[in-house]
Amino acid sequence: MAGIRDVAKLAGVSTATVTRALRDEASVTAATKAKVRAAALRLDYVPSAAARALSRGRSNLLGLFVPDITNPFYAQVAQGLEDRAAEARYHCVIASSHLNPERERHLLTSFQDGTLAGLAATTVGTDEGFTTALGATRGPLVLVDRRPRGIKAPLVRTDNRKVTRGAISQLFEMGHTRIAMISGPRDFDTACQRLSGFRLAYKAAGTALPDELIRHGHLGEAGGYKAMNELLELDPRPTAVFCFNNLVTVGALKAIREARLRIPVDISILAFDDMNLFPLVEPPISAIDQPAYEMGRAAADLLLRQLDGERGLGDVVLPATMIMRESLAPPSTR
Amino acid sequence: MAGIRDVAKLAGVSTATVTRALRDEASVTAATKAKVRAAALRLDYVPSAAARALSRGRSNLLGLFVPDITNPFYAQVAQGLEDRAAEARYHCVIASSHLNPERERHLLTSFQDGTLAGLAATTVGTDEGFTTALGATRGPLVLVDRRPRGIKAPLVRTDNRKVTRGAISQLFEMGHTRIAMISGPRDFDTACQRLSGFRLAYKAAGTALPDELIRHGHLGEAGGYKAMNELLELDPRPTAVFCFNNLVTVGALKAIREARLRIPVDISILAFDDMNLFPLVEPPISAIDQPAYEMGRAAADLLLRQLDGERGLGDVVLPATMIMRESLAPPSTR
Repeated sequence: MAGIRDVAKLAGVSTATVTRALRDEASVTAATKAKVRAAALRLDYVPSAAARALSRGRSNLLGLFVPDITNPFYAQVAQGLEDRAAEARYHCVIASSHLNPERERHLLTSFQDGTLAGLAATTVGTDEGFTTALGATRGPLVLVDRRPRGIKAPLVRTDNRKVTRGAISQLFEMGHTRIAMISGPRDFDTACQRLSGFRLAYKAAGTALPDELIRHGHLGEAGGYKAMNELLELDPRPTAVFCFNNLVTVGALKAIREARLRIPVDISILAFDDMNLFPLVEPPISAIDQPAYEMGRAAADLLLRQLDGERGLGDVVLPATMIMRESLAPPSTR
Repeated sequence: MAGIRDVAKLAGVSTATVTRALRDEASVTAATKAKVRAAALRLDYVPSAAARALSRGRSNLLGLFVPDITNPFYAQVAQGLEDRAAEARYHCVIASSHLNPERERHLLTSFQDGTLAGLAATTVGTDEGFTTALGATRGPLVLVDRRPRGIKAPLVRTDNRKVTRGAISQLFEMGHTRIAMISGPRDFDTACQRLSGFRLAYKAAGTALPDELIRHGHLGEAGGYKAMNELLELDPRPTAVFCFNNLVTVGALKAIREARLRIPVDISILAFDDMNLFPLVEPPISAIDQPAYEMGRAAADLLLRQLDGERGLGDVVLPATMIMRESLAPPSTR
């Protein structure tokens, strides 16, 4: 089997650069990374973590736990994780709990035998049984998107609060004063952070926020549909609605379509998480876009570094960006 | 641990009915199934396959191999598989090869140690190494959507050829005579079956099919975008285009939008596989809808029956249905 020195020689770089390149570190240029990866592939070089895992008879499987694989956000996280893991000769399996804490706990228990070399997890459980099961999985752990209460491990997330505050402030600048939010479960810290950014924008605008404009606890298309129908009943109706995730937005859009209201003339819509068809919806939907694929890569990277013996790794916070399309406009003056 | 007799007693049915209800057989009414499941849950009853698996120290994990988890078709198959498996106290892991045969082969190799109790697979590999690796996985095997050459196992699919032939015939009836198809890789039997249905509709209409109207080998948004741009260069342009899957359709729609053509005035569009946002696209996209969730349930069912000792199971062919929306119209007469 080829060693790191062979790869360094073939790529014309130092062994330290080989290590950094295969870890996808920002200090190495894309060109050097490509050269090193080509050399590693050509020589069939297995990087150290995987090599050590194999020589110890350890698994080369990384696990990704997600609450709902039909949510394209998680599918993209999965793809980033898989691609980064494959570079280090690790492979990934995905387990989806379908938002069912009991199923999630059973799944965690299935992996307490060392089948997985490491685990990246976005979880839904909150009780003690869950915390115990998550703590009992062997090997490195990385959290993605959300931190369950009491779990210490590096977290990959975006700055939910800041990006939401900025986006909602733009709606105030357009002239909206009655902006509603369809939020998620109160024990999801992502929902809390987005709601906190939403409240901060209200505060900065000096506008009072009536309780009726916040709808808690909604998930999936069905949740968005129900919450939007409730909001459309309000008098006066909100002039803009912020949906805390993508599938909630899909349900909300269907409710608006059924009510024969026009976006953005009758109501403006802002989604958290972009979708590949949002640019083609009538009208194209504005969204706060999280770099889901990059979040998956970062999670794999944190697992690989732990497998390489690194400890005390910090959280990774990636930027989310506002994509302005046609679903946002000043409120109609009628 | 509660036995089948306890469940039968609590539910007020025979033990044979308990077995059939927990297998989700059509001969049992929905009401009886609900009663039996409630009793099984209350008594914490583990059905026989799982019980035997556990008593033999066998895995309670089913695997699902898919080529691309970012394709919502596979995410829905996964959800159906998970839900059905959970009823029998099995859990599922998903592995996505990202259309990379080498990665798929490595993944298959990772599971030759008996980690999985059974495997449901939609695969991309075609070479001998792949066939060997697939054959070497232990335990029951079920194929989903496509059958790789030389692999004998029950297959869950829809009648691709028949539904496509019917849908394309409707386009001829609308007056189209120049209908193009963006097809997938030639070694995907789904692509072949859909293409075969497409050709049959041409034959039934007595219309010659020029080679330039068929674009082979396209996958994903990028593939659909490229193929549609090629089709838009043709003179005369096709008046309707059939896209062989959902992500190919997304790319094709983006190319049409960029070319500032109007659907369906300038060009009609038909997709294979529906998506949750197709009804909200401008205009709403007509699609042939496969029952992906039900396909996943059927695949789990075939695995569970094999785990229960059944042999010689046949293929399951589920109906796909045409959903007419506004992206199809008679060709413009200009």
